[in-house]
Amino acid sequence: MEFPSKLIENAVGELAKLPGIGRKTALRLTLHLLKAETEATSALAEALAKMRFEITYCQICHNISDTEECGICANTLRDHSTVCVVSDIRDVIAIENTGQYQGVYHVLGGVISPIEGIGPSDLHIDTLLTRIPDSEVKEIILAISPTMEGDTTAFFLSRKLREFPDVNISTIARGIPMGGELEYADEITLGRSIVERTRQVKQ
Amino acid sequence: MEFPSKLIENAVGELAKLPGIGRKTALRLTLHLLKAETEATSALAEALAKMRFEITYCQICHNISDTEECGICANTLRDHSTVCVVSDIRDVIAIENTGQYQGVYHVLGGVISPIEGIGPSDLHIDTLLTRIPDSEVKEIILAISPTMEGDTTAFFLSRKLREFPDVNISTIARGIPMGGELEYADEITLGRSIVERTRQVKQ
Repeated sequence: MEFPSKLIENAVGELAKLPGIGRKTALRLTLHLLKAETEATSALAEALAKMRFEITYCQICHNISDTEECGICANTLRDHSTVCVVSDIRDVIAIENTGQYQGVYHVLGGVISPIEGIGPSDLHIDTLLTRIPDSEVKEIILAISPTMEGDTTAFFLSRKLREFPDVNISTIARGIPMGGELEYADEITLGRSIVERTRQVKQ
Repeated sequence: MEFPSKLIENAVGELAKLPGIGRKTALRLTLHLLKAETEATSALAEALAKMRFEITYCQICHNISDTEECGICANTLRDHSTVCVVSDIRDVIAIENTGQYQGVYHVLGGVISPIEGIGPSDLHIDTLLTRIPDSEVKEIILAISPTMEGDTTAFFLSRKLREFPDVNISTIARGIPMGGELEYADEITLGRSIVERTRQVKQ
């Protein structure tokens, strides 16, 4: 695709570097911005630059934050004895949106992946281990996606957490998702959902 | 969806204003930028702002251009007696990419759409009409999408172009697209492809 203008070419090129955006979509977005008010583009450009350059991370849990301590860690109403370990900020947002969790978080910033050259020292594991004795942590929930890398990370963490015999370690429940059909579930998930069945409360 | 940071909230909000990008995709893009080098974000923000504020339009054909006269209008090797009228800059790029057209263009900047409040005076029709006597235009190709608004615009233009009896007016060929199956084509397209059949050259 050739463009009549270097400025368009650059804008399309930069947009097309984003994941899931190809050159056709990038061109559509660029021409949309061209048609809209100039304020729309300056607001977008400013919001992106401000976000990237001014963002800070919570010094306790490594969640994104506008202050040194994030809103969740600073909230005294939350249960600081339960720490949910997740790989990514997206997971924090997803769990928060369920409204089912009242504890605090610890964001690892990724999972152990030898292929991508990410080792345990690249993740926020040290700060998790130093955090436990400081506060009164009673339970650590490993809420890491059950991929190969995720399982490796969870396994590594459970080995490390043996240092703290008083802290309970749990993982999120695996099983058939709500609305899922049994016959289409994979064997491992279905198998675990039977082994780890939950007892129904008699009414 | 609640976000732990106002900066993220703003960036997601601005990205989600773009067509075809919802809040989930916007969050994915934002977190991608957060993980990448800061240079990636500044390059994107700068390219967008520069594109929007520095872009100029060709004074002859209203195509986007970095100079007063676009590369196509300035090119003396092109056939300036044939003008292809399109609604949008995207159409210029699409036709240029075919490599089949050697003439010049005229970008209307939209189509007549009473619902959206776009009348003939909002389009670059005046400059097309003043352009014809100035140059030696012999043919005008109406390459406007065959939607209701597009057909209205084409009809309006053909009426206006009656002023110039020496100028031939043509439209792009309608018919079955290459690789298209006859049985799935709509009746109007199939009907026109038979009425306007092209004679095969005997070899």
